[in-house]
Amino acid sequence: MTGVTDLLEQIAGIGRVGASGGYRRFAWTREDALLREWFAGTAAGLGLEVVEDRVGNQWAWWGDPDSAPGIVTGSHLDSVPDGGAYDGPLGVASSLAAVAALRDSGFVPSRPLAVTNFVDEEGARFGVACSGSRVLSGAMSADRALGLRDGDGVTMAEALVSAGRDPHQVGRDDEALARVGTFVELHVEQGRLLGDLDADTPVAVGSSIWPHGRWRFDLLGEANHAGTTRLEDRRDPMLALAELVTSARSIAARLGCVATVGKVEVRPNGVNAIPSSVSGWLDARGPDEDDVRRLVPLLEQSVGVSAVEESFTPDTRFDADLSQELAGLLGGVPIVGTGAGHDAGVLATRGFRTAMLFVRNPTGVSHSPAEHAEPEDCEAGVAALVATLRHLASGAEAVPAP
Amino acid sequence: MTGVTDLLEQIAGIGRVGASGGYRRFAWTREDALLREWFAGTAAGLGLEVVEDRVGNQWAWWGDPDSAPGIVTGSHLDSVPDGGAYDGPLGVASSLAAVAALRDSGFVPSRPLAVTNFVDEEGARFGVACSGSRVLSGAMSADRALGLRDGDGVTMAEALVSAGRDPHQVGRDDEALARVGTFVELHVEQGRLLGDLDADTPVAVGSSIWPHGRWRFDLLGEANHAGTTRLEDRRDPMLALAELVTSARSIAARLGCVATVGKVEVRPNGVNAIPSSVSGWLDARGPDEDDVRRLVPLLEQSVGVSAVEESFTPDTRFDADLSQELAGLLGGVPIVGTGAGHDAGVLATRGFRTAMLFVRNPTGVSHSPAEHAEPEDCEAGVAALVATLRHLASGAEAVPAP
Repeated sequence: MTGVTDLLEQIAGIGRVGASGGYRRFAWTREDALLREWFAGTAAGLGLEVVEDRVGNQWAWWGDPDSAPGIVTGSHLDSVPDGGAYDGPLGVASSLAAVAALRDSGFVPSRPLAVTNFVDEEGARFGVACSGSRVLSGAMSADRALGLRDGDGVTMAEALVSAGRDPHQVGRDDEALARVGTFVELHVEQGRLLGDLDADTPVAVGSSIWPHGRWRFDLLGEANHAGTTRLEDRRDPMLALAELVTSARSIAARLGCVATVGKVEVRPNGVNAIPSSVSGWLDARGPDEDDVRRLVPLLEQSVGVSAVEESFTPDTRFDADLSQELAGLLGGVPIVGTGAGHDAGVLATRGFRTAMLFVRNPTGVSHSPAEHAEPEDCEAGVAALVATLRHLASGAEAVPAP
Repeated sequence: MTGVTDLLEQIAGIGRVGASGGYRRFAWTREDALLREWFAGTAAGLGLEVVEDRVGNQWAWWGDPDSAPGIVTGSHLDSVPDGGAYDGPLGVASSLAAVAALRDSGFVPSRPLAVTNFVDEEGARFGVACSGSRVLSGAMSADRALGLRDGDGVTMAEALVSAGRDPHQVGRDDEALARVGTFVELHVEQGRLLGDLDADTPVAVGSSIWPHGRWRFDLLGEANHAGTTRLEDRRDPMLALAELVTSARSIAARLGCVATVGKVEVRPNGVNAIPSSVSGWLDARGPDEDDVRRLVPLLEQSVGVSAVEESFTPDTRFDADLSQELAGLLGGVPIVGTGAGHDAGVLATRGFRTAMLFVRNPTGVSHSPAEHAEPEDCEAGVAALVATLRHLASGAEAVPAP
């Protein structure tokens, strides 16, 4: 069974959390290994040749990947904590389903075509999103990636060893990059633009990704007894966290951005102890890079500490001509921007010809077990991807070198 | 070596956390088992007979415990997360040192005398402070205690089984209680009253424990994507946490109480996800019970949810006559109240004749690796305890039945 919903069903049990119904599929864990095995097995079953690049991203090739710059489609299989079933897997499953449909139809691509599974897109474990495509493309150094630590203090290098891999192999992979002519990523929409649009359309083409970044605020205080320390003697960093949270919301609203403090670590996190320190992570995005950049110093001023920038991705535009071309090919579907980061955005930043397809999400809810896409909309996404791949890998279309 | 600082030195390595220099000694863990072994071995070395009650509190008896209501002294060996070396252990070590000194001096007690180590005083693992003395004395039911869960979801019953114990034995222990005539707990001071007092005195007698309680606020929101969800569409429970933290401080200041949000749990705690829920624990105390009680509904109103009361201990007065008597015996030392809870408070509430001795803490810092008491002040504490025990266990003093 190679329909998109069948494929998603095959992995529905992997990394599912009983309590929330959401998923915990983090890079280089057992769940990740199971998903990688499923990807390799399914792709091999479709007659594709599965290889890995130096970072561990999986590529399933149809045709000789070194014969010409290829048409690549895919997404990721990892999740945020308690994430939904579609963010990432819908793109991978749709790509596999599209290849199956093309094969069944007797289509013969004029150039090599691949389905890819990028590792660690969400950055849920090590804190930096899209580390798989960033290291692959040289946007992040191997040294920095390997030194990132998860919540238990395990470095990515150690996690790779635990997963039976060699961290010394990790690095920018020019050989793998040279095979990419065009990259198209299909993704569930993470807002409700398609759900709200009067035009009843289940698919859109992406125009750009808002500039976005992550900053860590380490708020220091002094541990002390919650019962015996006078209020005036306290240095309680939880008050600074409260200030960070409320200021982030009000300053973001003023600047037309979105800002979120979604992750907090309290030390020692005891009921009867004033914390010694609290770390709060800020995620900030917006249509205008200057505004996003302006938000952080205002917050630093309001809480009185310097933030550590963990990542920043400037405004990212997908290939405008290609996006127009695909929107026309698909019958005049809308072209929309998004506040969510993607591997396609990383590759676009690094000069690759990229495009994105979004599939309608009726409530717009994402990064949540409630994330949803209707089966018929998923099928429409596959049909759009089939048309796109057929168009890009037909004899007529010339693919420029990156 | 049975000096108080020597005894503390013997356990200085158990449960020490490298990063903070503080201690993590939680009930029914490996560290707790090591501390219990140390207690039993040291007490046996002093010729005391070590028994356990149904809850697992340790009692080291000098003389036949069933011959008359005994004089009991002691404290606890567990800690808060990243706690100091003195909160609890100073009382246990001083009690052992005092017994050693009495024995060396040839003193023969007129009634049985015991050193006790109460289990799980801090409640760091299962969330309820003084569970050892509460269950022993019937202030908390065994069912409630056994069902408490730690941060990993392990119940106290399961933890007991893992520690090789039988949870079915746990319950109020009238036989153990009948042996207690008077209980005296020595403790490091957790404020800096003795450090600030003009009178240069290293020891004080306790008068009372402020009413205090713990409440959990479960703040619910809706998980969603941090980049694609408009501010106006969000239900972000982190904003309610910020409100809880700031309101707790301002309302406590207005009411003359202290209030602390020292423990927070964020779900799913991902950088790029609006949390689905945040739990914040409130610790509130004050000299006036009505004011402490008034604080919680005001906070419930400000964050719009009902709090779960995890524990509440009303104003607790130690035996006033005994406190006066001891203050005189010790040369007119001050009698002071405290905002910190203690097993002595639980026993006082349950009708036992109790008193406390506090040893000077120059900075007042507690529940922190920086907690400190000077060695000579610790020795002064032992001397005060020796005088107290000699007085209470001499022939002249009549101990009323509980």
